[in-house]
Amino acid sequence: MAVGPDDLPTLHPVPGVRLAAVAAGIKTPGRKDLVLFELAQGTRCAAVFTRNAFCAAPVTLARENLQASENAPRYLLINTGNANAGTGEPGLVAARACVASVARHAGIDVSTVLPFSTGVIGEPLPVVPIQDAVPSALAGLAEEGWAAAANGILTTDTRPKGHSVRFTCEGQSYVVTGIAKGAGMIRPNMATMLSYIATDAAVEQALLQEMLGELVDISFNRITVDGDTSTNDACVLLATGRADNPMLASREAALYQPLRNAVEEVCIALAQGLVRDGEGAGKFVTVQVNGGRSESECLEVAFTIAHSPLVKTALFASDPNWGRLLAAIGRAGLAELDVARVQLYLNEILIAENGCRAASYTEEQGAKAMAPDEIVVRVELDRGTRTAAVWTTDLSYDYVRINAEYRT
Amino acid sequence: MAVGPDDLPTLHPVPGVRLAAVAAGIKTPGRKDLVLFELAQGTRCAAVFTRNAFCAAPVTLARENLQASENAPRYLLINTGNANAGTGEPGLVAARACVASVARHAGIDVSTVLPFSTGVIGEPLPVVPIQDAVPSALAGLAEEGWAAAANGILTTDTRPKGHSVRFTCEGQSYVVTGIAKGAGMIRPNMATMLSYIATDAAVEQALLQEMLGELVDISFNRITVDGDTSTNDACVLLATGRADNPMLASREAALYQPLRNAVEEVCIALAQGLVRDGEGAGKFVTVQVNGGRSESECLEVAFTIAHSPLVKTALFASDPNWGRLLAAIGRAGLAELDVARVQLYLNEILIAENGCRAASYTEEQGAKAMAPDEIVVRVELDRGTRTAAVWTTDLSYDYVRINAEYRT
Repeated sequence: MAVGPDDLPTLHPVPGVRLAAVAAGIKTPGRKDLVLFELAQGTRCAAVFTRNAFCAAPVTLARENLQASENAPRYLLINTGNANAGTGEPGLVAARACVASVARHAGIDVSTVLPFSTGVIGEPLPVVPIQDAVPSALAGLAEEGWAAAANGILTTDTRPKGHSVRFTCEGQSYVVTGIAKGAGMIRPNMATMLSYIATDAAVEQALLQEMLGELVDISFNRITVDGDTSTNDACVLLATGRADNPMLASREAALYQPLRNAVEEVCIALAQGLVRDGEGAGKFVTVQVNGGRSESECLEVAFTIAHSPLVKTALFASDPNWGRLLAAIGRAGLAELDVARVQLYLNEILIAENGCRAASYTEEQGAKAMAPDEIVVRVELDRGTRTAAVWTTDLSYDYVRINAEYRT
Repeated sequence: MAVGPDDLPTLHPVPGVRLAAVAAGIKTPGRKDLVLFELAQGTRCAAVFTRNAFCAAPVTLARENLQASENAPRYLLINTGNANAGTGEPGLVAARACVASVARHAGIDVSTVLPFSTGVIGEPLPVVPIQDAVPSALAGLAEEGWAAAANGILTTDTRPKGHSVRFTCEGQSYVVTGIAKGAGMIRPNMATMLSYIATDAAVEQALLQEMLGELVDISFNRITVDGDTSTNDACVLLATGRADNPMLASREAALYQPLRNAVEEVCIALAQGLVRDGEGAGKFVTVQVNGGRSESECLEVAFTIAHSPLVKTALFASDPNWGRLLAAIGRAGLAELDVARVQLYLNEILIAENGCRAASYTEEQGAKAMAPDEIVVRVELDRGTRTAAVWTTDLSYDYVRINAEYRT
């Protein structure tokens, strides 16, 4: 079950990036479970990783190699089927062995290969099958490999996620293309989420990292399926420089804003794509909180609603249960909240105000507002001018089934 | 579904307290849904209420009357079937009307009646049926009414909760008896939980309030079913003074510690009883965190585990999924956590250490540890001497079904 169209949109190639997806037999025989990115010389790389203290071995090694290569990796090696997390020191040895295999076959320095893993936690990474599959991955690299890669990184996802934008600035055309995976264990501060976004623009690395940090904060860090944060999250932004523009190094340059807009569009499309494919998701819910004193208090209210199992089961039942919504707002911990000023809307229908059901509201309106599979819950706090939105799903039988049956 | 024995234990009467449960027809015809406590003159009352900003009308009025009566209420009026929450100003008028009815028939001041409600949010409280039932409630008051009251306050609970302790101090015998309701919307800082505990000891009110605050903090505030906090929570501790002991006013008095122990036993039994009857509960899980630098960081880890839907669905599946447990520990936000020192036990079986599965651990051991319906998850942080425990349940299909079907 997932919300919205299943089709992967056209993913435009990004000059300077070639991709391959091959079947290494990591968990499911025959399934394409190993993805390789090749990055042109001179590509700048920005990345953010999970903040979970139990971070996986590939996260540790990717961070290490990113630094050692001065943010100029040449290959990204991504496997699904095994997270190589909770594997201690042997897990790090395994990650190094896989990376070394790419370096040896490609004839480049080992520090320029970044590893990423997703799948079962706590099982030893099957190193030999991965090593054995590296030559065919190298042989299969192609600029048109984005769709295959989008499929090759999935775990419990029911469909691939990708988004691609082309834009023109000062007569030069540019492209931004991204793919992502992740369906459960999704919450702010990164999720079991892997995301790779590339542009052919030339961007100075420090600016690229700032841009990524700011955009992750308003996209991937605004989604939640179940409040869990994984051990393996990573989001990578690559700038190959093949567009041959003068190196972008300032927010004042003409290219900055259109590029940022394009990357933002890709980040938000991918983030929403993760929620739409959330485990057991039957609803795509935007929680919009307005009129706050600060963005952080708006986020506090939005996430309290989005994480509430009682709200989420009501969403699953298409029940306009505004009482549970008010209760969630009330426990979000806002100082001096005047509940009589709070207004609550479902898809533009006013359902509660003055601490109770709105006089104009009818159950028929509520049932109608809850029927679609895309719902906006809007809270007006009426105590300031700040706003924030998060995206989430309902809590269904399928969520329980998937997570009771699947050994993460 | 619920964990542990169904039987209500013997609830010893508390001299000075008489109770009645009658059918007012609030929601389900014929069901006993209205409970009245009569408290002897001179009874001291301590209480804690929900911190939810959207607190219900009866909470507002009970707070007000507690103050107006100088913490010496004479009646507690409790209805189930309707929470009188999210009802705005009309809800407060309704609560006052019910309370006034008790005062009029009993011939006491209106400020000495405290109202409590639980049930559906956002529906008008049916005042007339409650008023009509007050005379028969007054007529039915009896010292033996505890079991009937324990049943009369339930909502989605599958069974009544009560606990009773007798003890002797300096030749005088005392009793502490308590009842509670609550099965969902349960988390720290009070839940959709109503709890009434009474003793015949004479206790000075300020000391009684301190004792209640301290004991709620290590009992009701240590349980969680779904992380939601309700609009109506209340916990009341009554001291009727009918044991005729000299008024207890100091922690140094001989009676203090044995009384505190008895009240603590009742609070913890009731709190655990709520979890054992948690919505859809198939497991009763103690999360014990040791070796922390502070109690608060132990609680942080314990609640992160207890709230994780991924951990809870694994518990439902009896899956010893230590990877999800490590991931929860890792995202609890502890500064400078050395994951290599953390040890994880399931029912005394060491399952993970050094950031990975313990060498001694086998899947057979794990499956065996997860099979019982009472499970202890123990985390050894090995960075200090503080400890904390919380109690929780698994997340089952039944939890989703109950909350998707039930209009709170």
